[in-house]
Amino acid sequence: MQNFVFHNPTKILFGKGTIPAIGPETVAFATKVLLVYGTGSIKRNGIYQQVTDSLLKAGAEIVEHPGVQSNPVLSHVREGIALAKGQKCRVVCAIGGGSVIDEAKAICAGAVVDHDVWKFFIGKKSVTSPLPLTTVLTLAASSSEMNSGMVITNEETRQKFGFANKKLYPQTSILDPEATFTVPADYTAYGAVDAIAHVLEFYFTTQDPATPVQDRFMEGLIINAMESCDRVLADLNGYQGRADLMWTATLALNGLTAAGLGKVGFPMHLIEHSLSALYNVPHGAGLSAIIPGWMRHQSQSTPQRFARFAERVFDFRNGSPEERAQKGIDALEEWFQKIHSPTSLADLNIPKQDIQQIAENTVALAKIWRIPDYDSERIQAILAGC
Amino acid sequence: MQNFVFHNPTKILFGKGTIPAIGPETVAFATKVLLVYGTGSIKRNGIYQQVTDSLLKAGAEIVEHPGVQSNPVLSHVREGIALAKGQKCRVVCAIGGGSVIDEAKAICAGAVVDHDVWKFFIGKKSVTSPLPLTTVLTLAASSSEMNSGMVITNEETRQKFGFANKKLYPQTSILDPEATFTVPADYTAYGAVDAIAHVLEFYFTTQDPATPVQDRFMEGLIINAMESCDRVLADLNGYQGRADLMWTATLALNGLTAAGLGKVGFPMHLIEHSLSALYNVPHGAGLSAIIPGWMRHQSQSTPQRFARFAERVFDFRNGSPEERAQKGIDALEEWFQKIHSPTSLADLNIPKQDIQQIAENTVALAKIWRIPDYDSERIQAILAGC
Repeated sequence: MQNFVFHNPTKILFGKGTIPAIGPETVAFATKVLLVYGTGSIKRNGIYQQVTDSLLKAGAEIVEHPGVQSNPVLSHVREGIALAKGQKCRVVCAIGGGSVIDEAKAICAGAVVDHDVWKFFIGKKSVTSPLPLTTVLTLAASSSEMNSGMVITNEETRQKFGFANKKLYPQTSILDPEATFTVPADYTAYGAVDAIAHVLEFYFTTQDPATPVQDRFMEGLIINAMESCDRVLADLNGYQGRADLMWTATLALNGLTAAGLGKVGFPMHLIEHSLSALYNVPHGAGLSAIIPGWMRHQSQSTPQRFARFAERVFDFRNGSPEERAQKGIDALEEWFQKIHSPTSLADLNIPKQDIQQIAENTVALAKIWRIPDYDSERIQAILAGC
Repeated sequence: MQNFVFHNPTKILFGKGTIPAIGPETVAFATKVLLVYGTGSIKRNGIYQQVTDSLLKAGAEIVEHPGVQSNPVLSHVREGIALAKGQKCRVVCAIGGGSVIDEAKAICAGAVVDHDVWKFFIGKKSVTSPLPLTTVLTLAASSSEMNSGMVITNEETRQKFGFANKKLYPQTSILDPEATFTVPADYTAYGAVDAIAHVLEFYFTTQDPATPVQDRFMEGLIINAMESCDRVLADLNGYQGRADLMWTATLALNGLTAAGLGKVGFPMHLIEHSLSALYNVPHGAGLSAIIPGWMRHQSQSTPQRFARFAERVFDFRNGSPEERAQKGIDALEEWFQKIHSPTSLADLNIPKQDIQQIAENTVALAKIWRIPDYDSERIQAILAGC
């Protein structure tokens, strides 16, 4: 195990009926609230009403910043910052999934500084005293509700960049599984893929050969993501499946899985961010298209690690490490297919002749993320197997 | 899964060489420090020197409160409170295991109020604004370094009472596995038993039949506690084993294992607290003496749960649920014996004729802990099987 700092101050309120707590939790910081949300589904399913009722009852004054899109864009972040500044908002409340919460974090960081918010993403400025943030989660996927990271796409430069800062943990996040009942089957599946991908990134990129505590935690989360997703897809309004998937996705990237692993990379997210930036595919769909190909590439270097994965997650106990590794990857790929998530570039209608262009975009990001071992040649080799 | 609130604000600094951070982490709150510790082992192994060097370098003024004993006693807590008040200490730094940290929490709570500290334990007063607390952990066992609970023994009434309050999480805890190298084999084993017991309490007392996310997390922790304890007992100075055991014990009772389980009890700790109060046995030794007997008693009500335990922890997949349950309990008992931790009252030299007296003590505690289903008859039946 490697040295680490773990400090996750986010307060989680989990369970049915918890949304009406958002008002008191938010006005505990300030009454002038910037309310950040997406494109209207929360108005159809009643969550918007629940949140605004609670905020108003608690004495909040609400300034609305709707219209956050999946893969949130910089221009809309800038609009939110201008609104928060102009209206002197002192707290941000986000209702949505990872995209909305990520944009809200960027607004929290940008609303208190004079420079452009993108400077945080390209490493030119550091976050100082962001506005406090509360969230109501509506999609089990990103764990943004309990971590300090965010990802924003710059439409001008076609770059999808992310970064994390310890001052950007939400103060309070409300996780009501019923708020995810209206998420359709495809986006439920993409969310589960995203959660699994977060764990796989750590599991397969740690350089530490001995992390048994973290390993069992991660293996359990992968199994639970798959099992709970299966249950949700069989019954979209099943509370227990939604609850298990929601909590699993939160735990998958709240800092606990990575604590002690040492330096880890995000190679699958790295490549997927280019797919999202170039083709605007859903994040989870882009991930599952890349994961099997990346795993086959990576397993040649560390077959023992992939054999452990196969044994612990899929109970494959027989055969050589290489054989078990292969069987484990195949099984995960088959599961992606079962939940109708893409498993190849072809499934996303991305032609193979685009691989070089994708790789160039990815290499630029790899420099920012400091993953120097992902050069164009390697990325093209991986994508050729996707 | 049941509704829950999870909010653990403790900052963990984990790994070798982290002790010198204690000074800055502590004086960030105040410079007048009450330093709480035990009976001298930290002076022999150099940890006391490391901590005081760091505190002084950071500008702290140190007031010492040594002499905390295993199963910390109320009279010594009161002395610490009087010292903190008299010397106007504004932060407490604890160096030790669960006993020291528990006593430090009680001092933090009691040093800012005019009434006697025991009123917190008997539910007559609530914690308001305790002194901040930093810790340097020297024993993998209690998780007090990352939770809000504490247990103190009132020598006058012979009661060992515990309670938790969300304001009593340590601000910062430093977990350096090397600080546990000098813990001898027996107390290392008792610490592992304590960590396992914390998980077992939750695992077997939850009333919720569907908690798969928590279950796999708990099962992983039990396996890791056993495996890492085995490795430490084979090499007391083995860093990785010490590190895995330390982090496992912290995760076992930091709120995450219980989050979502609904109401859980502490029946094994309940009974053990009476053993400690009456016979002053080491906490972990008392626990392992009770656990197999309690499990055999409880498994008659919920054999499926015990069968799952046997399957997941010991890989027993064959036979009826009752058979697997029995095999799992036997296997855990055998492991306790392997690490030389007691598995019966006889191993603790406690005669069977004391059972009624123990049960009376336990029943009094059961009322405070609101575990009404543990009456004298039931406790005596359990103890008869221990």
